[in-house]
Amino acid sequence: MYTCSLDRMTDKIKTFSKYGDAGHGGITRYSLSPEAKLAREEFIKRMKAIGAEIEIDDVANIYATLPGTDPGAKRIVTGSHVDSVKNGGNYDGILGVMSAMEVLETVAENNIPHKHPLTAMIWTNEEGSLYPPAMMVSGIVCNDYLPPEIAKNFKYENMMKSKAMEEHEGSAKTFGEALDASGYKGDAKYRLSPDKYLCNFEAHIEQGPILEEAGNDIGVVDCVLGMFNYSLKFTGFAAHAGTFPMSKRHDALYAASQALCYLHDEIDKLGRPELVYTTGEIYCHPCVHTVIPDEVEFSLDVRHEDPKVREQVMEIVKKIATMKWAGCDCEIRENWKRDTVYWNEKLVGYVKSAAEDADISHQMIHSGAGHDAQFVAYMLPTTMIFIQTKDGLSHCEPEYAKPEHCTSGATVLLNAILKADEDFE
Amino acid sequence: MYTCSLDRMTDKIKTFSKYGDAGHGGITRYSLSPEAKLAREEFIKRMKAIGAEIEIDDVANIYATLPGTDPGAKRIVTGSHVDSVKNGGNYDGILGVMSAMEVLETVAENNIPHKHPLTAMIWTNEEGSLYPPAMMVSGIVCNDYLPPEIAKNFKYENMMKSKAMEEHEGSAKTFGEALDASGYKGDAKYRLSPDKYLCNFEAHIEQGPILEEAGNDIGVVDCVLGMFNYSLKFTGFAAHAGTFPMSKRHDALYAASQALCYLHDEIDKLGRPELVYTTGEIYCHPCVHTVIPDEVEFSLDVRHEDPKVREQVMEIVKKIATMKWAGCDCEIRENWKRDTVYWNEKLVGYVKSAAEDADISHQMIHSGAGHDAQFVAYMLPTTMIFIQTKDGLSHCEPEYAKPEHCTSGATVLLNAILKADEDFE
Repeated sequence: MYTCSLDRMTDKIKTFSKYGDAGHGGITRYSLSPEAKLAREEFIKRMKAIGAEIEIDDVANIYATLPGTDPGAKRIVTGSHVDSVKNGGNYDGILGVMSAMEVLETVAENNIPHKHPLTAMIWTNEEGSLYPPAMMVSGIVCNDYLPPEIAKNFKYENMMKSKAMEEHEGSAKTFGEALDASGYKGDAKYRLSPDKYLCNFEAHIEQGPILEEAGNDIGVVDCVLGMFNYSLKFTGFAAHAGTFPMSKRHDALYAASQALCYLHDEIDKLGRPELVYTTGEIYCHPCVHTVIPDEVEFSLDVRHEDPKVREQVMEIVKKIATMKWAGCDCEIRENWKRDTVYWNEKLVGYVKSAAEDADISHQMIHSGAGHDAQFVAYMLPTTMIFIQTKDGLSHCEPEYAKPEHCTSGATVLLNAILKADEDFE
Repeated sequence: MYTCSLDRMTDKIKTFSKYGDAGHGGITRYSLSPEAKLAREEFIKRMKAIGAEIEIDDVANIYATLPGTDPGAKRIVTGSHVDSVKNGGNYDGILGVMSAMEVLETVAENNIPHKHPLTAMIWTNEEGSLYPPAMMVSGIVCNDYLPPEIAKNFKYENMMKSKAMEEHEGSAKTFGEALDASGYKGDAKYRLSPDKYLCNFEAHIEQGPILEEAGNDIGVVDCVLGMFNYSLKFTGFAAHAGTFPMSKRHDALYAASQALCYLHDEIDKLGRPELVYTTGEIYCHPCVHTVIPDEVEFSLDVRHEDPKVREQVMEIVKKIATMKWAGCDCEIRENWKRDTVYWNEKLVGYVKSAAEDADISHQMIHSGAGHDAQFVAYMLPTTMIFIQTKDGLSHCEPEYAKPEHCTSGATVLLNAILKADEDFE
């Protein structure tokens, strides 16, 4: 059993936190931005320093590989992304990259024997913050293996046309243009593929409060929850706030508020504490204080492992669409849905026994959030490791994971990979 | 008793509807825009044609005056605005200007004897659509007479700095710059004032469904309702939609929805059908489908004649601020409030008896909306006349009033003015 270095991990956290430092403890590091390039350069510099070979594919993914003892063996890959949301934290994504680096650095430093080449990887544009959608590049690379209804949303040609958010001035106009200008457009022959790669690991902060509350440093992830995303639109009509009697109004915001409360009441009746659902977006038209809103739409994101439970929620949503709300009609639209993606059982077992061997506190956990790993899982045997997150906060500047926990995560990752190196076929 | 001309009124409606025609039956005619200048030129052309003298003050208000038989008599003024909201209708504001023109044209055509000079007036920037706030210029002109808490919001110097909405490309940057560039910046000595003016009338579409429902063509307005405007802000904390358990959430949108429904329930218990209240605006942060909202704010506009009833609503709002909503705090902010403004009783009487004399169906009515007349009322005896509005719609392209009703409105306005000419001191 090998352990990773707390000092080296702490140094990496400190170093990478500078690239895009937003001045309040967190970072803004959009994909392919100057800040993201600094992080990429740092990765390449450190990986070259341990003798890893660098490859870059045509969508700017970077692969740093240490050769193994068996020249014919496929590679074992681990990595994550260096890009962040706006005013995000120092851990989401980058911790998976730093953990991958730490694994290779520990292997190199200790001359740990391994048959398979080991690859640390940076995924491009996971967040999709500047160029939507999220998980764009894993969607491109794994496209041939994804279910058709997901694959169609990630076609290479369309993704290259993804426009940068307007608020980000001075940015290239499309993802394709940013890629061309980045100096990181390499060769498609280096893309992750089942021909060359055996299996995939991704370490990531939990982004929830479950591990912290249970006092466990590490989560052994078994799946990414299935989910669906709907929009609920309420249509009434606009009229003047001062001149239109209450009894004649068809107020779309009152309608949406009633329906949102009803939604909570009905879903709560299902008695499923592990179900999560979120109404994160709301749009109101015309959104003027003197005008009764004629159109209000809110989003609904629902996640649960069991498709039957998701189906029960969908029934409630469909029922809402048949009802009148403050005199308004409700129309629902399915934006997307995806099934629960289960990790490879053998790989999950390696993670679990690696944590046991190292005597690191751990528990089984689901991933509620989406990650590049979930697209890779359609192409390669894959699993994930979660690291305890302070207060469950992520996608914000106070996002935090202790260096000790980050190092424990890397240790579990290293030993799980070594088990795969010996055992996995 | 004199009657106005349906043909002439219909021609005016047709002509002015061209200036800013937005292609869907309505107009976009921002104050001081090229479209608004066309309407101003048309007004001047037609008023000069009947021998009226044109004056323009330093905030671009236009006054067209027919002399009376008494050289020492003060003027009687009537008018409204030619500017509109974005994609507004062909009646809000401009009908009051067309009615004023129609009154002077009828007087001129029939050589109707009158002691007092009669002035038709265009107010600048009533809507404040491009340069907020609404009723900007009447707020400037009547500033010395307004209650201090209102007056402070309409100081000349500050109003000149009002910035154009960014979405209106190519516009001048501030109201002051637009005014300088307009060619309509005249002399402050022409401003409406009690020295030169006796009293003020404004004709306007009702903007509500009350007259239509009662089958009355004309509303004899007695007051503008007192109102208050509050913001209610709910603060929780943001977390990831997929990873954060329901039981630990402090969801600001759920909080706001619950409070909005509670507000309706509690206000409805007051049993005041004539009370109107509107939650027209809602802002959600960060408004991302995968993030639990940490901050949601909605506006509340409340209008009723009786200050005691408004106070009862304010008590409910204050109570909401003391309660917890879905684990979130609520903070309230008063944006503005104003008392009910009652019109001059004598002038209201003239309008009523003018409608009776002409056998035009009418009823007493309050104004729920604000108008320039309500600021003028602090300076000069003032009243208003409402014209039936189809389906109560206004501030939208389907806004409509029948030419017959518009002409009836002008006839009532003409005869009320002639009564004031004889009787008012």
